[in-house]
Amino acid sequence: MRDKSRYDLVIEGGTLLTMVDDQEPIQDARVLISGDRIEGVTNRHTGPVPEAREMIDAEGAIVLPGLINSHVHSPMTIFRGLADDLPLKRWLFDHIFPAEAQYIHADTVYWASLLACAEMIASGTTTIVDGYFLADEIVKAVHKAGLRALVAQGVIDFPAPGVPDPGKNMDVALGFMERWNGFSDRITPGLFAHSPLTCSEQTLRNSWDISQRFGSPLQIHLSETEEEVIEQEGRTGSRPAFYLDGLGILGSGLVAAHAIYLNEDEIGLLADRGVKVAHCPESSMKLATGIASVDSMLKKGISVGLGTDGCASNNNLDLLAEMDAAAKLGKYARLDPTVLDARTVLRMATRGGAELMSIEDTAGTIEAGKKADIIIVDADAPHMVPLYHPFSQIVYSATGGDVRDVIVNGTILYRDRQFTALDVDEVKGQVRRIARMIRSD
Amino acid sequence: MRDKSRYDLVIEGGTLLTMVDDQEPIQDARVLISGDRIEGVTNRHTGPVPEAREMIDAEGAIVLPGLINSHVHSPMTIFRGLADDLPLKRWLFDHIFPAEAQYIHADTVYWASLLACAEMIASGTTTIVDGYFLADEIVKAVHKAGLRALVAQGVIDFPAPGVPDPGKNMDVALGFMERWNGFSDRITPGLFAHSPLTCSEQTLRNSWDISQRFGSPLQIHLSETEEEVIEQEGRTGSRPAFYLDGLGILGSGLVAAHAIYLNEDEIGLLADRGVKVAHCPESSMKLATGIASVDSMLKKGISVGLGTDGCASNNNLDLLAEMDAAAKLGKYARLDPTVLDARTVLRMATRGGAELMSIEDTAGTIEAGKKADIIIVDADAPHMVPLYHPFSQIVYSATGGDVRDVIVNGTILYRDRQFTALDVDEVKGQVRRIARMIRSD
Repeated sequence: MRDKSRYDLVIEGGTLLTMVDDQEPIQDARVLISGDRIEGVTNRHTGPVPEAREMIDAEGAIVLPGLINSHVHSPMTIFRGLADDLPLKRWLFDHIFPAEAQYIHADTVYWASLLACAEMIASGTTTIVDGYFLADEIVKAVHKAGLRALVAQGVIDFPAPGVPDPGKNMDVALGFMERWNGFSDRITPGLFAHSPLTCSEQTLRNSWDISQRFGSPLQIHLSETEEEVIEQEGRTGSRPAFYLDGLGILGSGLVAAHAIYLNEDEIGLLADRGVKVAHCPESSMKLATGIASVDSMLKKGISVGLGTDGCASNNNLDLLAEMDAAAKLGKYARLDPTVLDARTVLRMATRGGAELMSIEDTAGTIEAGKKADIIIVDADAPHMVPLYHPFSQIVYSATGGDVRDVIVNGTILYRDRQFTALDVDEVKGQVRRIARMIRSD
Repeated sequence: MRDKSRYDLVIEGGTLLTMVDDQEPIQDARVLISGDRIEGVTNRHTGPVPEAREMIDAEGAIVLPGLINSHVHSPMTIFRGLADDLPLKRWLFDHIFPAEAQYIHADTVYWASLLACAEMIASGTTTIVDGYFLADEIVKAVHKAGLRALVAQGVIDFPAPGVPDPGKNMDVALGFMERWNGFSDRITPGLFAHSPLTCSEQTLRNSWDISQRFGSPLQIHLSETEEEVIEQEGRTGSRPAFYLDGLGILGSGLVAAHAIYLNEDEIGLLADRGVKVAHCPESSMKLATGIASVDSMLKKGISVGLGTDGCASNNNLDLLAEMDAAAKLGKYARLDPTVLDARTVLRMATRGGAELMSIEDTAGTIEAGKKADIIIVDADAPHMVPLYHPFSQIVYSATGGDVRDVIVNGTILYRDRQFTALDVDEVKGQVRRIARMIRSD
């Protein structure tokens, strides 16, 4: 039996943002970790450094819960910067869809996802909500990288990578769920119904039923463009949220990504049903689709997580930069500088994401009993000096490059800006090999 | 005499973005530098590495002109994150103005400016357009740090740091210009008339006359808020641009910062008069003041530079991040993803800034005859892989932390992410000493 007086890991010193309710930053903190679990949070002046297998000195740094990327398509990292500054339809139909049809194979999905994981770890993300096709390969990549994740198999009623016959999409989905259910306590398999317009009623209902059966959240792209809303109304007579409600799938197990063109009634309906929202401000700006009314959603009690979206529309997976964009865009959209303050946005990128995944009992804060998903942000670079308010500093001054150490499930994945286990040079090499084929087209 | 076959510095390899007109990226480039001057740009396969005092290997990296921060108040770095998410007037009157009155002394201006310089160097900025009070200390800091700069003494008809009696503001301004004119070929002294509302007609005219006499651009904050425009119209019957034109100071020597609330007639007038504009998207978002119609301005031929604004409203001085914000906000504001493409935005942060300073014959591009102001951006981090289009990668994927080497005026200021001469620990220590006094208030 483990000697109770000995911890596996102790983080000593620094300014700790627990993200527990309204708790203020704790100076000179000490975080005690055993196995994959946080045992306690104290002040380092309460006693000598306890015996520990490993100690991280966080003096002068900021310690906070690992960030949660609530909406990402990791495999699309292969398309980073391939086609930018284009009209949405030309971008999709002339560039992204053809490239997906030609280059998205298991090999691409695995290596591009692993690169995405490396990027996210190095920029402070410990948990991701992913969805794409050939999702078995995403699971393998996430498992290898060490992240916590909800990984979803995409479902669409069109031919898709790995699912050339849409008539088989539910079989593929069910197979995916059965294959990975219980495989790892870090990885939850799930489904991603592409959108209310690209999936039939039956497909949406079946996706929901399977997700419910496995106790896993169902993701869907909801009202990302105004055009979609108009088309949905034309087809069904209902705006998208009401349409989904009519199908009986608007519930607390649904994660709506983007959720930009919702009217007040729809926001009210989402709140009533306990639907979660993934907000992707940089992608929405870059694709010029609009901006979600996140401030209204939060006021109505909707759980909102923050996502980068896929790399092809961002073009990075840096949640620290995304927080800055979320806060600033929120203010600009309302012409009110008090909207989406730093603490609210950091909450969105931590606890908000945990609520979105329904793992708020496990992740999203630093407190005894939670899983040890923790990041340490260097506060010594010129752009982090002086330090008056750590919430502001994290949201408005830091970027991904300031992340120094990353711990997931009690395991150190990144220390002093180096990967502890992942061979990132191999990953980059493999992705460059695939990209050379795409580039030579 | 110098041996002509020997260069002082050669940059070997990498992808070169010269920013000369429509020139495409040059692969495997070679940049030849003698003294402070670029001697030539070739391809490394044209011959063996020439004899050089120093060689930088840029293989796998992206080489581009140093970035130009067209609007910054370096000393305000002391207030980074001091007061965020507040209504504009409360922010100014309850926090910034009182802190300025109490803590802005020569000592603060010098150290905070030097910290700003360190931050800007480390994030790829080689030239700055600065303006604040006690500007002698900014000149000293910029000189010490090695940046190229237009440093302006602030002029306002209210008591200001270092100018308690506004009746003396023109004497102080003239003294500043005389003191630093000809002091350094890197540093141009200038004036900054605070705004059309906070300076009298006489002060505006005098500031313009002195600036013209010394051949130096005059900076002014123009129409940052709608309130200002309404007040200006109420007082003078004219919108701000027409008011300044009536005073005879709307000319090619004027740099208008922000320029948010301009109507089409005012934009046309600025274009006719050759006025330059400094665009500060992150500050405008964070303070929720609005967004300048930069796309319209560019279409009308106005030279637009990109600025971070002061650190108290950003809260960093990272122009790589600012480019991303500029491109994305531009698209969102028009709901058109083709607005402000990556190349246009990078041009704004390089040549645009040089035009704004009227030094386009000297800086802003990499070509023979220009000053050697060059940065090298690491393209090997996970978030920079794969690399299809270097303009996109620089604008949408990179942040300041990716900058590896910085050369100003032929001198290497930053190499392999280390300052070559600046004692940055001393600078941070001094700023933290001052911040402790502010914090304890």
